[in-house]
This record gives sequence, C-alpha cells and structure tokens, in this order.
Amino acid sequence: MTGLRPPDPALLDQLAAVLGPQGFVTERALIAPWLTDWRERYHGETVALLAPNSVEQVEAIVRLAAAARVAIVPQGGNTGTVAGATPPADGSALLLSLRRMNRIRSISAQDNAAIAEAGVVLSDLHYAAAAIGRRFPLSLAAKGSATIGGLVSTNAGGTQVLRFGPMRALVLGIEAVLADGSRFDGLATLRKDNRGYDLRQLLTGAEGTLGIVTAAAVRLVPAIGSRAVAWAGLPSPQDALTLLRRLEERTGDAVESFELVPASALALVLANIPGARPPLTPACPWNVLIEAVGSEGGPDPAEGLAACLASAIGEGLVLDAMIAASEAQAEALWRLRESISEAEKIDGPSLKHDISVPVSEMPAFLEREGTRIEAAFPGSRIIAFGHLGDGNIHFNLLPPEAAERSAWIDAHGEAASALVHDLVAQAGGSLSAEHGIGQAKLAEFVRLTDPVRLAALGAIKRALDPQGIMNPGKLVPLASDGKGQ
Amino acid sequence: MTGLRPPDPALLDQLAAVLGPQGFVTERALIAPWLTDWRERYHGETVALLAPNSVEQVEAIVRLAAAARVAIVPQGGNTGTVAGATPPADGSALLLSLRRMNRIRSISAQDNAAIAEAGVVLSDLHYAAAAIGRRFPLSLAAKGSATIGGLVSTNAGGTQVLRFGPMRALVLGIEAVLADGSRFDGLATLRKDNRGYDLRQLLTGAEGTLGIVTAAAVRLVPAIGSRAVAWAGLPSPQDALTLLRRLEERTGDAVESFELVPASALALVLANIPGARPPLTPACPWNVLIEAVGSEGGPDPAEGLAACLASAIGEGLVLDAMIAASEAQAEALWRLRESISEAEKIDGPSLKHDISVPVSEMPAFLEREGTRIEAAFPGSRIIAFGHLGDGNIHFNLLPPEAAERSAWIDAHGEAASALVHDLVAQAGGSLSAEHGIGQAKLAEFVRLTDPVRLAALGAIKRALDPQGIMNPGKLVPLASDGKGQ
Repeated sequence: MTGLRPPDPALLDQLAAVLGPQGFVTERALIAPWLTDWRERYHGETVALLAPNSVEQVEAIVRLAAAARVAIVPQGGNTGTVAGATPPADGSALLLSLRRMNRIRSISAQDNAAIAEAGVVLSDLHYAAAAIGRRFPLSLAAKGSATIGGLVSTNAGGTQVLRFGPMRALVLGIEAVLADGSRFDGLATLRKDNRGYDLRQLLTGAEGTLGIVTAAAVRLVPAIGSRAVAWAGLPSPQDALTLLRRLEERTGDAVESFELVPASALALVLANIPGARPPLTPACPWNVLIEAVGSEGGPDPAEGLAACLASAIGEGLVLDAMIAASEAQAEALWRLRESISEAEKIDGPSLKHDISVPVSEMPAFLEREGTRIEAAFPGSRIIAFGHLGDGNIHFNLLPPEAAERSAWIDAHGEAASALVHDLVAQAGGSLSAEHGIGQAKLAEFVRLTDPVRLAALGAIKRALDPQGIMNPGKLVPLASDGKGQ
Repeated sequence: MTGLRPPDPALLDQLAAVLGPQGFVTERALIAPWLTDWRERYHGETVALLAPNSVEQVEAIVRLAAAARVAIVPQGGNTGTVAGATPPADGSALLLSLRRMNRIRSISAQDNAAIAEAGVVLSDLHYAAAAIGRRFPLSLAAKGSATIGGLVSTNAGGTQVLRFGPMRALVLGIEAVLADGSRFDGLATLRKDNRGYDLRQLLTGAEGTLGIVTAAAVRLVPAIGSRAVAWAGLPSPQDALTLLRRLEERTGDAVESFELVPASALALVLANIPGARPPLTPACPWNVLIEAVGSEGGPDPAEGLAACLASAIGEGLVLDAMIAASEAQAEALWRLRESISEAEKIDGPSLKHDISVPVSEMPAFLEREGTRIEAAFPGSRIIAFGHLGDGNIHFNLLPPEAAERSAWIDAHGEAASALVHDLVAQAGGSLSAEHGIGQAKLAEFVRLTDPVRLAALGAIKRALDPQGIMNPGKLVPLASDGKGQ
C-alpha cells in the first residue's frame, strides 16, 4: 500500500460538506459497531464513517479519496465471515457504509426482475418480491441484516444454490463507482447481453476491491405454490448423495435444498438450543434436510418426495424419514439446521472452514479426511455439515473436550487449518466455497494458489485500481507479485 | 496493433517443429475453408493454420508467438456470426484451430459435470451426456459444428437460455493459455468457489482476446423424462409474454423454450423450405413455439401445457393452438422455427440484428420500432423472431421487394442498422444479445457504449495481454482510448 495516505483534515472537511451531517459520522458510539467483523475476530479503526444516500455522493467520495490517495473500505450489513468489510486497525482508511442507499428502484413481475440499491436488506427484497407474486431465490441466516451490495460483492451462497446458483447467477446488472470516481452503469435487466468482458461478473465477488457496487438488477422467479420439507436419516454421506441424485432424476428441479447434518451437529443443537427436539428416534449417524417446492397449479411436491423416500427406505438407502405435516413442523426442521452455528458458538470456540470439492468426492472426503485430521490432533472432533449437493461443507473442528478451547485454538489452530486446506487442495477443492477471502483467508489463499492465477488477479487489480485505494488488504495479494503498491 | 509483426520464417520453422506435420498446415486447400466467416462476409488470410493436439502444444505456440510479437486468432467450429474467429486480411496473424483437441476428459453423473476440450463438437457432448442419463442443456442450430471452446468464448445462447441461462451459467471451470504462454488451470468441477475475481467468467465471452480456452468443465442436468411441444397462435407479442408468465407460474421450470414466430417469418418458411406445412389454419398474426419438459417419474408436461393453453383460448389470449401428438410432429414444429434463417437466406440477402431489451418492453418495442423503421426505409419489412422469453429477438430487415437486395443493403444497410441500434440503445437494450462483437459489430459497439465501460475493457485487455497478440481487432476497441498498441 505504498503511496496511500491517511485522511487529512482538509479531505474530511470536503467529505463532510458533500455528505451533510447524516452522511458524515464521526461520533464514536455510532461508528463502533461497524469496526468489528461479524465473528468478532478483527477490529478496525477509522476517523469517519461515510454514509452516502445516492450514487452521486458515492462518486464524489471516491473522486475526493482518489485525489488524496486515501483508501476506502465499503460495507453493507457487516455480516461477512472473512472480515472483508472491516477497516484496517491503523485507521488509515475511510469506512463507507452503503446502508442508507436502501431503495428498491424498480420491481417487475413481467420482467421477473428488481433493481435494488446496495443497502437494501435481503429480507426487504424478499418481502417486495412476495408482494408481486415473485420471490428472490437466495436466502441465508443473516437475511435480516445482509445487504444486496454485500451479497453481490461476496457472491453469497445460501441454501438454494443447488437449484438457483449463487448470487453470481442471479445478478442481471450492476451499477458501481470505479476507483477513479467514474460510474459504471450496467444496471439493465437484460437477460442476454454479449457486449465485451462481463464487468458485472467481474465485480460480483470482488469484495469491493475493484469498485463500489451501488445497485444491482437481480432475477426474480415465480412464487412457490407449495413446499414439502423432509428429514431423512442415513447410514453415510455417500447414501445421501445417491438419494439426492435419485430425487433430482425423479422430481426435476423440485429439490431446492439438501443439507447434510451429522449426528454430532444435531446433538450440539439438541443440547444447546431451547425447544429443539429430535426429528427421528433413534438418532441416525447422518441426516439430510430436504426441501422440495411445487408451482401454483402443479402437483404437491410432498407426494414425489414421499414416494422417493419410501422406496429408499425399502432398499436400506434411508434408515428413517419424516415429512413435515405443517408449516410449523417445517420451520422446526429448518431451525435445527440453521441453529448449528449458534449451537457451536454456545458450545465454545471452534475452528471453522468453508470448503468445497467436486460433489461426487465429498462423501469420501468427509470420511477419509475427517478421520485423518482427528488423528493428527488427538481429541479434536470434526463437525461437518451443510450444502452437500453443492459439494460445499462447513468443516469445523472442535478442540478436545479437556482443553481450554481458546488456548488450544491459539496453539494449534493455524496448523489444523493448514492441514484442512492442504487436504482440500489435494482433492482439487476450494478453501473458500462461499465465504470469500477478505482478510481472514488471504494468507492461506496465497499459500495454496497457482502463481499464474495470482498474477492475473494482481494485473486486473492494478489495471482497474492503479492507486490501490479500493479496500486494500482484502482478496488480492498485491505484495506477493513484487509490484505492490 | 503497433508493435505486432507478421510471422517470419524462423518462427514458422519453430512452430512446425513443435506441432509436427499434422499440426502445422500450410496447404492452401486445407486452410481456405477456415479463412471466411460463417456468414461469408469477411475474408482473412494466414500463412499457417496451427492445429495443436494438446494444451502443452498451445502453450508452446503462444510462448513462441509472444516472443516474436505475432498475433494469434483462435478458432473452433467457425460458426460464429460476427467474424470473431476470422483472421485479418493482411495475413499478419496465425490461425490457431482447436479442433484437434476434441477429447472429453471426464464425465460424471454423480457430479453432473463433464470436462471437455475446446475442440469437442457440441453434438458429441450431447451424445456423451445422454449415454450416462444426463444432458448438456444448451443447443443451437450449428450444434454439429460448433465447439465447446467457441461456445465458451462467445458465451453462446440458444433455445434453452430461458431455463438454464447462456453458456456462462453452465461453465464450472476453464483451462486456458494466457498471453504469455502460461496456463491458467481453473478446470475443477466445483459448484461453489469464491476465491478471487472469477477468471472463468472473465474468459467466458472474451472471444479469445484474453487467452485461448483449451478446455472447460460444464454442468450437466438430468435427462428429460418426457417433453411436450406446442404451437400457439396469438393476436400480439404482448399476449405471448402474458402467456409465458402464466405458464411459468403454473408449471414451474417446465417451460424450456418459448420462441416467437411472426406470420411473416412463417410465410417465408412455408414458401422456401420443402415439406414445411402450416401448423394452424387459418394463420395467426403471431405464433409461439413452446417446449415444456418433465422429469422421469413426474407428470406428463403435456397435461399442464394443454390445460393452460385451453384456458388461454377461452379468454382470447390465444387464438388457436396445437400440441404435437408424436415426436415426428414435435420435430416438424421445431423445424419451422429452426428453418427461419435458412428460409431468409433462400429468399435473398437481409440485414440481421441480434438485439435484446428488458423482456417486458420487447412487445412494445417490436410494434413501435418495427413500424418506425419500415417508415424510415419505405418498402422494407422487419422480420422479428426468436427468444421472446429472454427479451432477445433476431430483428432482421428485408429490403423492398422491388429493389436489388444486395445493392439496397450496400446503399442503406449501414444507416438502417444504425437506426435499429439507436432505438435499442434508447430502450436500454443491447445490440448484441447472444452473437458477440467480433469484428462485425465493433464499430457500432464503440459508437454506442459508455466511455467508462470502454475504458475498463481496454484496461483489462492491456493488463492481461500487454502486447495485444490475442485475437487483435476483435471485441475490444484498443485504438479508441488513445493508448493503442
């Protein structure tokens, strides 16, 4: 980051004049909540939180910051898990919150599309779509805080990727302010547009390092007619994958979610979450939560699901299964899945990994490498759960029962994570399936990534942000190529 | 292209040594078919056609060409419509054919994925997928010649974009040789991978200007259980769009194709294609070809389609409709749609445009702007057909009946196309929905594109291909930014 400067009083005066009192925040109590990342592991500093309410204000901010060579860290709902929106600890960067830009500029059932500003909260987009008989088919636990700009910039995943893909597959258009303060207007709701390199795709998942996403046009799909939620117990992850492929063959695209839950994760939930009840008795070594949906006038998805589960039980592929008989039961099953992270947190610190390997290899990976890691760190336990159908598992390691957990993680965490990532790399997988790189995974990303790829990323970064003012220190390892800024 | 040089004898000797007699082709008769574009409007020259059979040979070619500052034009099946794979007429570039790299390296039903080399012909991938109970859900008329590398590099569309998206949405991984001869290995079949800028997406649709795609990992989906093909006659394109949204709401993702055919296009087919027969009598002013598919054990898609069409007829939305009673009838309906281009060709030269606007605006665009253009060029007729559900229409203009067509196009074609593109730009649309830019649309692309966007494209091009040897003169307007190479 050679060449960057901290914000000086003259710049701050100019910014205050542009943004007005509501948009230029220096009061400590108002800034503090946004300086620490969601997982509370990184703590940043800033002299001012900038909260523009229009794209014109964002352009003005970037022009001023570019002229002064001051870094900008964009932030949405601050729900990311890799500290990609946490400013540096030395206070050298400005924190730019997009949360006041929260208008849905347009929404259309005929277009199956909406244009939402970066600060629109995911839940609000869900409500707006439902009001016109549509839905936005991306959801995740942080939906009440996560914003569209953040979801775009992190290429967020969630529980419906199996059917609809991640955010990248739902973005039709993007408006962004680039590093020189110019506005890239790619906000159309066009379904097809083959003009040149796809800057929309380049900005999606760029974690604010190439420009600041100020609005996005996104796909909507028809509202759900009916849904069926089932819980199935199985002998192994391989059986779960076999079941998934069979369901897909027989029900087409009806299966939207297929979430793996091992007995260990379920036990953590039952022990720590009030009101949680076991869905099957006796408990099974592995479980999947399945959601299938049907269209308005179409057949009830519960029928196809029930038939498929019954025949799978008949041949021993599935040990036991239940289909929720009411919305309340369906919600209770989903709560079991969505409470795993919270249950882990109550249980104590753990070492989290968000990995992917080819879908067909995940069952063997879980069995083989889980055992290997537990052997390398005696007493530790792997809790592996999540999006089996995407080949994406949250592969978390709990310290030994006897250990003081934080101390154990301080002592062994780095080595244990390195081993997990090495095994993932050997399997041709990714050390960040859906959470991104941010600052939390940057070192491991550099360690395990082909220099050809790193060089290309660095070249793109330098081409579009030659001063390096856009969210420096995140995602792109500029120092490593010998041409750091 | 300042700084580029034509290939000299020393370079040709080195290339011949690397590629061997089968891979280094100088015989005129073997090269000639590949020097003219698919629409036979651009004619190139080259001293040698390079036909590597491995990624290592591609690396060697690019290293040698980069050292000699010689341009390379990659080519697949040569079925593109914008002359993106046609070498320059001055013979200064090497033509690199990927057609010998035609192995399917792997294919897996458990992964729902295949890894195909760039030269694999689309039909062959269709057959390979069918053999394992899967399908690759992208098809187009040139499927017997078009290659995977070309489909990736042009982000091809086709008739199933409505449900599955264009090539971009089906690419899981890419292997490419970059401008310095290094290999980018991004070939995994991972469903989710959030590590850095998505180079796979950047290379998709880059028309070979950033690197040479040598292989791609692509998504497969379950094979179709059954399909229903219908032909419906309607009063207007707006009624067609209303029908599409209703079908989607009632049948979920069953509708894969929804192709608009005006009476004028159908008349051209009936007049020029032997054996073509009118599907409905009397003829309707507008028609749609609908394909709906069902999964293996699921309900027959014909039932939902028939019910929806019947109620649409009842309320006057649809004038008349038929559902194919056999595969032969279904194929005959598809032939009507797929013969439109051929019928146009037999009828005589026309002026072709591949435009998109937001889906909801296309009906009004067709009625309003079609009239305006016909008025501006008296006697001319617009034939507009294609992918209404994607907001993408092939908007072709036939010269007046009395005129000598080629002469009329020479005299008025540029002005007429400029007017079409102006009207598309005013509607927030794209002058290239699925065909790309190549060399055929470069001038119009530059004329109508925001300088911010052009500057970003130029910066990316210079960053990844600083010498400008990768398919120069296509897609990226380097000269316009004053920093030409």
